Amino acid sequence: MKLPEGFLLSGINCGIKKNGYDLGLIYAKDLGTALGVFTINANPAYSVTLSKKNINNPIKAVLVNSGNANCYSHESGLKDTEDIITKLAEELGVNQKNILISSTGIIGKVLPKEKIIKSLPELIKNLNKKYKNFSKSILTTDTFEKVSFKKASLNQKSFSLIGFSKGAGMICPNMATLLGFIITDVFIPKNEFKKMVTEAVEESFNSISIDGCMSTNDTVFVISSNKVVLDNENEKKIFFQKLKDICLDLAKMIVKDGEGATKFIEIQINGAKTKQEAKAAGMALANSTLLKCAFYGANSNWGRIISALGQAGIKVKETINIRSTNLEKKNIKMTVDLGRGEFCRKIFTTDLTPEYIDINAEYS
Amino acid sequence: MKLPEGFLLSGINCGIKKNGYDLGLIYAKDLGTALGVFTINANPAYSVTLSKKNINNPIKAVLVNSGNANCYSHESGLKDTEDIITKLAEELGVNQKNILISSTGIIGKVLPKEKIIKSLPELIKNLNKKYKNFSKSILTTDTFEKVSFKKASLNQKSFSLIGFSKGAGMICPNMATLLGFIITDVFIPKNEFKKMVTEAVEESFNSISIDGCMSTNDTVFVISSNKVVLDNENEKKIFFQKLKDICLDLAKMIVKDGEGATKFIEIQINGAKTKQEAKAAGMALANSTLLKCAFYGANSNWGRIISALGQAGIKVKETINIRSTNLEKKNIKMTVDLGRGEFCRKIFTTDLTPEYIDINAEYS
Repeated sequence: MKLPEGFLLSGINCGIKKNGYDLGLIYAKDLGTALGVFTINANPAYSVTLSKKNINNPIKAVLVNSGNANCYSHESGLKDTEDIITKLAEELGVNQKNILISSTGIIGKVLPKEKIIKSLPELIKNLNKKYKNFSKSILTTDTFEKVSFKKASLNQKSFSLIGFSKGAGMICPNMATLLGFIITDVFIPKNEFKKMVTEAVEESFNSISIDGCMSTNDTVFVISSNKVVLDNENEKKIFFQKLKDICLDLAKMIVKDGEGATKFIEIQINGAKTKQEAKAAGMALANSTLLKCAFYGANSNWGRIISALGQAGIKVKETINIRSTNLEKKNIKMTVDLGRGEFCRKIFTTDLTPEYIDINAEYS
Repeated sequence: MKLPEGFLLSGINCGIKKNGYDLGLIYAKDLGTALGVFTINANPAYSVTLSKKNINNPIKAVLVNSGNANCYSHESGLKDTEDIITKLAEELGVNQKNILISSTGIIGKVLPKEKIIKSLPELIKNLNKKYKNFSKSILTTDTFEKVSFKKASLNQKSFSLIGFSKGAGMICPNMATLLGFIITDVFIPKNEFKKMVTEAVEESFNSISIDGCMSTNDTVFVISSNKVVLDNENEKKIFFQKLKDICLDLAKMIVKDGEGATKFIEIQINGAKTKQEAKAAGMALANSTLLKCAFYGANSNWGRIISALGQAGIKVKETINIRSTNLEKKNIKMTVDLGRGEFCRKIFTTDLTPEYIDINAEYS
């Protein structure tokens, strides 16, 4: 795996966590283009608020900290965050408007601003073309690093994408948050690029649910260095597919690392009236506590499907078609045909296990 | 406890369950007045569909079966249900329009119509002034009978209410459903009576959540024999309070009997902008898987409150005021002051435990 052209990465321990990397940096040698998808939680982290403000500017760097959500800690939380990125901008010799920031960890604890600021020179000094330190620096309760790499060689050109994500989904949003970072070297006009990212994120990061809890920090960034100009439709099409693949890879890894989960479940909804209904049906099933218990117990209790769909306002007939692969297996595919239209959707989730409860009962 | 004037009750085993009572009857000697609150699940049981049709008629009897949800079993499910109440109407010498029906149990199994019809004479023969058999006949996984009794003696009059509920809440909606039956002997003009029932149900049965799952069968009926005419405001006020008390008693018993629950949690929301927001905030907390794990583990992880409120679209300040009684205790009261208005709401819930998962993993 070679980083896409035009980027350097870094990751260090700055003292937020006692052990392990907790501060990461994505650095674009020249100004890059950024697209972002943010949590719609009404109480977002300060990092989300600040990044939303800067997302439409050319981007030089993305700072990420783990171990602290930088959210609802104190009334000058936003000011502290601005101070951090102003300092990083100074060190990099750019404007603070060209910097994004993401955080993940416990809500309500004051981010140790001084520790971070003091470590910025070391973080910058460690920038290089390797990805390992960065991929470690964004993790919290994750049990493995989530990295995916895609490339394509066209006639005269080649491009690549590398992506990082962290979970463990929304399963533990005080300590864990869904974060995704994808960097690539292509240039695509921003309006087209935005459309691609929106669709790729919708079919991946927005198609998973661990426990129905939405974090205050969820963020996906796609940053491009614009080095490889894609100017015909075929090239763009190939890139779009690679982008969708990398997002789906990263999202599935989050589900597989869901805390306490013993099963990976793909819910395929067919026959919905509208696109919205297909998603609502899939999410209703993925978020049904009862159905998730049934998956854990390999219990083919399909009445729970009818009940969960009805709770989401989706009326079905007695002739509804429900199929699933062997419920005893680790990977389960369940197909529900609503029989009322042409729209489909895939949603990915896990079972709900006693271990999940134990982890989240004790964690603080 | 003496039944309110004008009613008889019965409960027998008709063979839906192998053991235990599974068929109950509330009988009004003269035609009574009924008010009903039904599930808003888009896939309601046939019993719900039929009762909704009859609820505005004078009511002679309410038939209840447990052990089968009478829901999504086959395409002639509604027809079968009509046949059952037509037969009951014949036996009682009334019109089938004067009969209500409720069911609770597993979704998707055909209701054994013939067993029920064959048992109707025995059910009617057993009608008497005792409540025990009826209160048993409506249970599924409940570990105790849920009965509450209230009475008042005014100057010249006295009235009473007796109520029955079954859970175990929405915690296991294939087998369990929220049902409530309250009978009383008062006469209050129907529009006023309806207002009272709506408010009493909202503050009780609609203020509890075990796992956020809404059953296909949830129903509350209040039936009055109209024997004791309440014609001044003070009498009505006393009745209204008793009605609210009995509904709250029954609802709390459902929460206390939540499967696997080890704690009873009262969530008090203060300072909401609107009535709707107060309820939404309380329900967001009561339905947060993560927060419920925290209650189980006596973990004062208040970041989960911020996150759950934000997911429900409720933006709060860093100065939000959260207090709770000792989290180690069995009964916990948590108060959250949103600090943005004057509206309050109480919501009742339980913790989420490994035992809940085990019960629901195995049950079918």
